[in-house]
Amino acid sequence: MWGIVLQRGEGSPSLARQIFQQISGSILEGTLPPDEALPSTRELAKALAVSRHTVSEAYDMLITEGYVTSRQGAATRVTEHLCLDRSRSSRPEPLVTETFHPLSSGVAADFKTGQPDLRPFPKYVWSRLHSDAFSQLTPDLLGYSGPDGFSPLREEIADWLFRSRGLRVDPKNIFITAGATQSLSLLADLLYRDEREFVLEDPCHTAVPTLLRNRGYAYRPAPVDEHGLMVEETGFDWDSVDISAVYVTPSHQFPLGGILPANRRTALIRHARDNSFYIIEDDYDSEFRYQGAPVTPLYALDPERVIYVGTFSKTVFPGLRLGFSILPEALQKGWKHLRLYADVQCPVAEQAALAEFLRTRKMDRHISRMRKLYGQRRQVLLEEVDKIFGQAVVQTWGDASGLHLALQFAEGNFDRKFVREAKDSGIRISTIDKYSLTAGKHTDKLLLGYGHLEPEEIRKGVALLYDYWRRQSGIAGGKSKRDDQSFDIEKQPPN
Amino acid sequence: MWGIVLQRGEGSPSLARQIFQQISGSILEGTLPPDEALPSTRELAKALAVSRHTVSEAYDMLITEGYVTSRQGAATRVTEHLCLDRSRSSRPEPLVTETFHPLSSGVAADFKTGQPDLRPFPKYVWSRLHSDAFSQLTPDLLGYSGPDGFSPLREEIADWLFRSRGLRVDPKNIFITAGATQSLSLLADLLYRDEREFVLEDPCHTAVPTLLRNRGYAYRPAPVDEHGLMVEETGFDWDSVDISAVYVTPSHQFPLGGILPANRRTALIRHARDNSFYIIEDDYDSEFRYQGAPVTPLYALDPERVIYVGTFSKTVFPGLRLGFSILPEALQKGWKHLRLYADVQCPVAEQAALAEFLRTRKMDRHISRMRKLYGQRRQVLLEEVDKIFGQAVVQTWGDASGLHLALQFAEGNFDRKFVREAKDSGIRISTIDKYSLTAGKHTDKLLLGYGHLEPEEIRKGVALLYDYWRRQSGIAGGKSKRDDQSFDIEKQPPN
Repeated sequence: MWGIVLQRGEGSPSLARQIFQQISGSILEGTLPPDEALPSTRELAKALAVSRHTVSEAYDMLITEGYVTSRQGAATRVTEHLCLDRSRSSRPEPLVTETFHPLSSGVAADFKTGQPDLRPFPKYVWSRLHSDAFSQLTPDLLGYSGPDGFSPLREEIADWLFRSRGLRVDPKNIFITAGATQSLSLLADLLYRDEREFVLEDPCHTAVPTLLRNRGYAYRPAPVDEHGLMVEETGFDWDSVDISAVYVTPSHQFPLGGILPANRRTALIRHARDNSFYIIEDDYDSEFRYQGAPVTPLYALDPERVIYVGTFSKTVFPGLRLGFSILPEALQKGWKHLRLYADVQCPVAEQAALAEFLRTRKMDRHISRMRKLYGQRRQVLLEEVDKIFGQAVVQTWGDASGLHLALQFAEGNFDRKFVREAKDSGIRISTIDKYSLTAGKHTDKLLLGYGHLEPEEIRKGVALLYDYWRRQSGIAGGKSKRDDQSFDIEKQPPN
Repeated sequence: MWGIVLQRGEGSPSLARQIFQQISGSILEGTLPPDEALPSTRELAKALAVSRHTVSEAYDMLITEGYVTSRQGAATRVTEHLCLDRSRSSRPEPLVTETFHPLSSGVAADFKTGQPDLRPFPKYVWSRLHSDAFSQLTPDLLGYSGPDGFSPLREEIADWLFRSRGLRVDPKNIFITAGATQSLSLLADLLYRDEREFVLEDPCHTAVPTLLRNRGYAYRPAPVDEHGLMVEETGFDWDSVDISAVYVTPSHQFPLGGILPANRRTALIRHARDNSFYIIEDDYDSEFRYQGAPVTPLYALDPERVIYVGTFSKTVFPGLRLGFSILPEALQKGWKHLRLYADVQCPVAEQAALAEFLRTRKMDRHISRMRKLYGQRRQVLLEEVDKIFGQAVVQTWGDASGLHLALQFAEGNFDRKFVREAKDSGIRISTIDKYSLTAGKHTDKLLLGYGHLEPEEIRKGVALLYDYWRRQSGIAGGKSKRDDQSFDIEKQPPN
């Protein structure tokens, strides 16, 4: 009757819903016109070989949702004004599971940055801790536990900051976030003031200028040298610019790698105090320092002016989506309000598992193990670059830390074309120019991520990069043209 | 020497860091003036009874961070211009773990809304599924897996929407979010257009107007009756207002409880098509319908114009922070861009666990069990209200679904004062007026959440509410004053 066809089988909607859908569909299409009477439930049940109860249920749905009107003693009739040209929905196709930035199979030398090696992560240990932590959560904690974060995690982070960096932080100033990205996104909204600008390191990670642009917030670049932000040579006067906040990476400048020295730190703090702005300190990878201890956060100098942003993406895994901000009391109320209406809070189970990972010191052990591994890889990369390119052609920038390395070439014009054609040659690499707010100032530098690469992959990668670079530079022989393309080492030591 | 005091013991920073901190602290304070020479490592090591290696390490930190300058053959000296008045950080106090909206111990009748009962949640089953799912994640998937969501979860949601609501959705149009709140927050940014307004149901959940206000986006109220949004009696002309998007809760209007009938649905779709705006459909609790099947989403009528927002906060648990939006293709690129710079993606392990919860049909079983439980509680509440207040005094609004119930009183002026003083009497309750965009239109209605309450708590709560209401209304006797404060049932049936 009416072309109704029913599917039976697991995963199908109930028969009543199928009848409802096909009748309401005909009403929307106009095939069943307004005021048309529906057959009795007995009649339709017989025609479709289903129980009368099933048809009654379908009719109830039609009445509830207003497709038909039923009056006692009269036939059930189609409501008026329901005709609607329905867009057809296409048949679903199965999705292919893919990672977002895959280590593509076509890439022979993958120097992508910000990629920790996830293979040695102690999945079993994590899973067990997660399970233990979850089982101990009371029903209340499965509900909303607050935009500031799970208290035991905030306390464990405070302890960890103290034992790893000597930082004394009150747990109530630690706010858990879905990674540094969310910290930066919320801080942009929290610190933005009309007619004021954010000051960004130039170059810096693309995420920050992009999220500010998304919101229409103005920003101003401040140049970076081998020691990080050039605080006293910004090209502008700190006292005559209206600033919402300054974004810095003082422990390991991204992407150039410098450590901001104490005199620039104190100068920056003085400017912040004099001109009432906040400093956002993004400490994205300082756990992985290979010579000496982690650098002291700028935060230690003035917890009222500096907002410290930390992440567990590099130390645990990016898919965990946990990080934190340390906020002065003056900003906490506004932060909680913004967070509440952004996504309320982070998942409680993940927070509880991370608290256990910290409490049991599994975190410290994992970091120590990875630091050794990444340090060895960095060493291999440095040796290979030195051996293949030579110090006269390529010099390295930055502190011995993190998962990436900036290389400066004696001559080089590394632009989008260079990157695109490198990709065609099976090499994934970034230029520093990509991260520049003022284009053209760092076109002689490349950025190599190495944390995720085995020594053999690094060696092969550097060799491929050298071949590609030679072809691009038009160098015929097996040796680089030292005369044209080499540093005067005496005159220009970059770090 | 220099008043350096070292702490030894588990959880303390390394001795080298403690020496570094105390020397750098003295430099910042000015106790160690610029150009002052540090003692030799041998000397300081002896004075502090530590190894020379420890002091060397501390000196290396001071040099790296630029507190002192070392020149070959000369003493290590304090850098200039480092003096900084340091704010004192207070000693951390232990945090008290507390839930965000606790079911406070001082509350005898807790009718808070939006609170699922989390006690019957199958924690053990969930934990096992989580563990299984996590163990199967490849290392790649612990990295960034994309702002659209974990593919197996998107496919399981599509299957579930089909079997529970007969909705055919292509998994690639399903975007996983940190709950409905994040969906609404991203949609506000995505759909906002200069000089245009959002249209909101009045009354509606406070989250939506608040998040729009946070961003400075304009909105316009449209009135709601017992059938939901009054599409053709909004008080404005759809064709002459510039609209960014319309926000609706058609399956179960929040807070009044109506089901939007088919003629209003098709009319709304026609307005959206004629005036090129999107409709945001928030389906926050339609899984819990106690008489008949879940209402068909508005989305089914036009997947190109309607954005469906779903959440697992009520069906699984709020602390999971997972939900989803179904987006037309035209909006997907912009959505992914916004999400990427908001918080990148949801945690992968939670997504994988939820996919398993759906795939194994544990979700369906949990919902079915909770529907029965909540249905019984609703029944108890209805019976108690009827018994204690009587239909002449109180009438109920809305469809038999969800976790809350709106009550209309024949006479009543339920304002903030009523709520505040109720709290002092141990009763937590909301007014509908709290959710009104246009104050004063629903002051005769109260909103009672019941999902989290045991039948005995409901009975006790209604009795307490009755006593309090009588005192507030100045009714002396044990019976309500039917003459003054009762409905003319013939004239005014609210639903």
